[in-house]
Amino acid sequence: TVGAHDTVTLAGEYGTPLMVLDEVRVRENCRTYTANISKYFPSGSMAVFASKALSFKSIYNVIDSEGFGSDAVSCGEIYTIDASAFPMEKVFFHGNCKTGEDLAYAISKNVGYIVVDNRDELFALDAIAREHSKVQKILLRLTPGIDPHTHAKISTGGIDSKFGTPIENGQALSLLSEAISLSNIKVCGFHCHIGSQIFECDPFIDAADIMLGFVKTAKEKLSFDTEIVNLGGGFAVRYVESDPEIDIAENLKLLGTHIKDVCKNLGIAEPKIVLEPGRSIVADTCITLYKVGSVKEIPNVKNYVAVNGGMTDNPRFTLYGSKYTVVNASRASDECDFVCTLAGGCCESGDILQENVAIAKPVRDDIISVLTTGAYNYSMASNYNRFCRPALVIINGDDIRIGIKRETFEALLKNDV
Amino acid sequence: TVGAHDTVTLAGEYGTPLMVLDEVRVRENCRTYTANISKYFPSGSMAVFASKALSFKSIYNVIDSEGFGSDAVSCGEIYTIDASAFPMEKVFFHGNCKTGEDLAYAISKNVGYIVVDNRDELFALDAIAREHSKVQKILLRLTPGIDPHTHAKISTGGIDSKFGTPIENGQALSLLSEAISLSNIKVCGFHCHIGSQIFECDPFIDAADIMLGFVKTAKEKLSFDTEIVNLGGGFAVRYVESDPEIDIAENLKLLGTHIKDVCKNLGIAEPKIVLEPGRSIVADTCITLYKVGSVKEIPNVKNYVAVNGGMTDNPRFTLYGSKYTVVNASRASDECDFVCTLAGGCCESGDILQENVAIAKPVRDDIISVLTTGAYNYSMASNYNRFCRPALVIINGDDIRIGIKRETFEALLKNDV
Repeated sequence: TVGAHDTVTLAGEYGTPLMVLDEVRVRENCRTYTANISKYFPSGSMAVFASKALSFKSIYNVIDSEGFGSDAVSCGEIYTIDASAFPMEKVFFHGNCKTGEDLAYAISKNVGYIVVDNRDELFALDAIAREHSKVQKILLRLTPGIDPHTHAKISTGGIDSKFGTPIENGQALSLLSEAISLSNIKVCGFHCHIGSQIFECDPFIDAADIMLGFVKTAKEKLSFDTEIVNLGGGFAVRYVESDPEIDIAENLKLLGTHIKDVCKNLGIAEPKIVLEPGRSIVADTCITLYKVGSVKEIPNVKNYVAVNGGMTDNPRFTLYGSKYTVVNASRASDECDFVCTLAGGCCESGDILQENVAIAKPVRDDIISVLTTGAYNYSMASNYNRFCRPALVIINGDDIRIGIKRETFEALLKNDV
Repeated sequence: TVGAHDTVTLAGEYGTPLMVLDEVRVRENCRTYTANISKYFPSGSMAVFASKALSFKSIYNVIDSEGFGSDAVSCGEIYTIDASAFPMEKVFFHGNCKTGEDLAYAISKNVGYIVVDNRDELFALDAIAREHSKVQKILLRLTPGIDPHTHAKISTGGIDSKFGTPIENGQALSLLSEAISLSNIKVCGFHCHIGSQIFECDPFIDAADIMLGFVKTAKEKLSFDTEIVNLGGGFAVRYVESDPEIDIAENLKLLGTHIKDVCKNLGIAEPKIVLEPGRSIVADTCITLYKVGSVKEIPNVKNYVAVNGGMTDNPRFTLYGSKYTVVNASRASDECDFVCTLAGGCCESGDILQENVAIAKPVRDDIISVLTTGAYNYSMASNYNRFCRPALVIINGDDIRIGIKRETFEALLKNDV
């Protein structure tokens, strides 16, 4: 069940594959951040939703009402946020490759902060802001040189990252020096993001130390006063029982307290801290329901359960080998003694949702539930093999509403001439 | 240039990222198959386009006019093929997870052949065909137990595959025995597909031997006459200079001649052979043009060139580490001495198009061309980070037409409530 609703009934009513999102849980996750940030972090600190985890129109109404800002990594995300009537001054526009068109669009939409990734972008933005007769508030994206011990494809803070400008070789300070000399840009501070799915607090503590050290350097060398330090996102989520427990409230307490101490020790004014959770806001609020197409037993080799979705709606196992918890929702009280590979329906061997999971043995047409699918599932979905993307329903206690409609065949052809 | 057209001019005119497809080349590739199949293969043999490589409406008009059939792996592909007024009797419907809705849809669209993957599907199809008062022609998908030495994620013919029913343990013969007893199904033959991006002919020869051996067994044990053996696709394409040359015409000659010899030696009637090329029809007919957002030099570490596309329009490097040839189209005559990583614009470290390529050093706004992007690029594209999917223009000598329109911001929101 999700809220008061039985998943097998939902699958019958709304079709499969179906994503079911629990709004109450989204709000609880938001409040863990807002409560602990207001309690332990410097005054004016805030949380910002990492759109890339799950971007659709009405999610922004939920996070807005919880006092969150939002980030965006593309004009498409800016467009979606704007369409939800979100306060655009609370939007941070990220990305390592913003074209002139992107920057002009962000300025025209009154995006609060553009997080400038590199020198090319800095000068382009200054020129475009001038054309728009604006002074654009920016943060500079810096790489603190941290290895957060996560999957290489989602580690972003090292000096060899495609993102940002490194602190340790002096490039960041040079960039800041150039940035503060430009007339149509107002540098408000710095941003870093060390990676995703990080279970320990230590890498964040290390990142804060380096970023606050840079704040001190900027003050000493360039007399620059830092208003904002955005430490990005990255707190992990528990996907399977063998993942460690993670206490986000406790981690926020540790991090906020540490930041205040460091500011005191360094003798610098406390900047406002921005955190950008995405996965830890939405991942555990959602499940995906599939229908079984076949149960295949290859004696002495392996068993397959094929479902009517896969890498098209959840490419994370194919991309990273990510773990998920799988349940046969049609036989919730049966013993989980059928070890199988949960295969998607794409014509591709790599289209696997999970290997070697023990579930109650299904038959064709059973409903299988994959848990913790709120982050980086729908947002990474594709139409590979021309599969339609699933619907997403939002449960709020007794209420159900559709958040994202199921894609239609007609929509698949909308761009085909 | 593609055809008579300068790529940088095309990028300026149609925007970036832009896919540019050469129709003349598609037709040449088709004719390599049709000419050699009619010359060397048993009478009635044919080629069928593997839709998953690149499915959009007007590609089906091109392959239809070249005498190809088409496969489909989903109702979305069937819908697209049907929308192009393709002869549906030449369509083969594949997939390891066809739901009841899928099978009913395929029957209602008069799909020529349903390639039945497994026992669950067989019985479901018989019942559904009965409801529609039809006798549905089918092939049985079998796994020949071949390891074609390609990437594990695109190898499909082993006994441990999620696809089909194994020959070697007797499951295939049992399935055939059940299938021929069903009243609303007509078994026309067998299908196998050993994998993708296979450079040698030997694995196909091996697969043909095993499949024709099964044809003989089926005749001897069950008095079954095989009309069609569909050997799937899988011939490789040369992505980079270090890839071996591949002579498809020569391979087809070898394979066709071998098949005729084997039939003679086994004393079986020659079945019609179906081949299902996808990659080798479209991959080398297309390039993708991107605009440079930044050139980042991290001294003694690495260089990045960031472009306004990436894993959203070409996830193959992220998924498989696939190689591509990269060219700075804006500086085609400059020396290629700038070694860099070509990074996409997604907020994800894994969003890389290619590592360590030597290109003429670009500046912001240069046009970068990635070659051989016709297969498994657009078809696997996503809206991750809410990037819009690119446009695809079709060049036919002097003529240009739009095959797929650029996705709009409005379209991103079409399903959001």
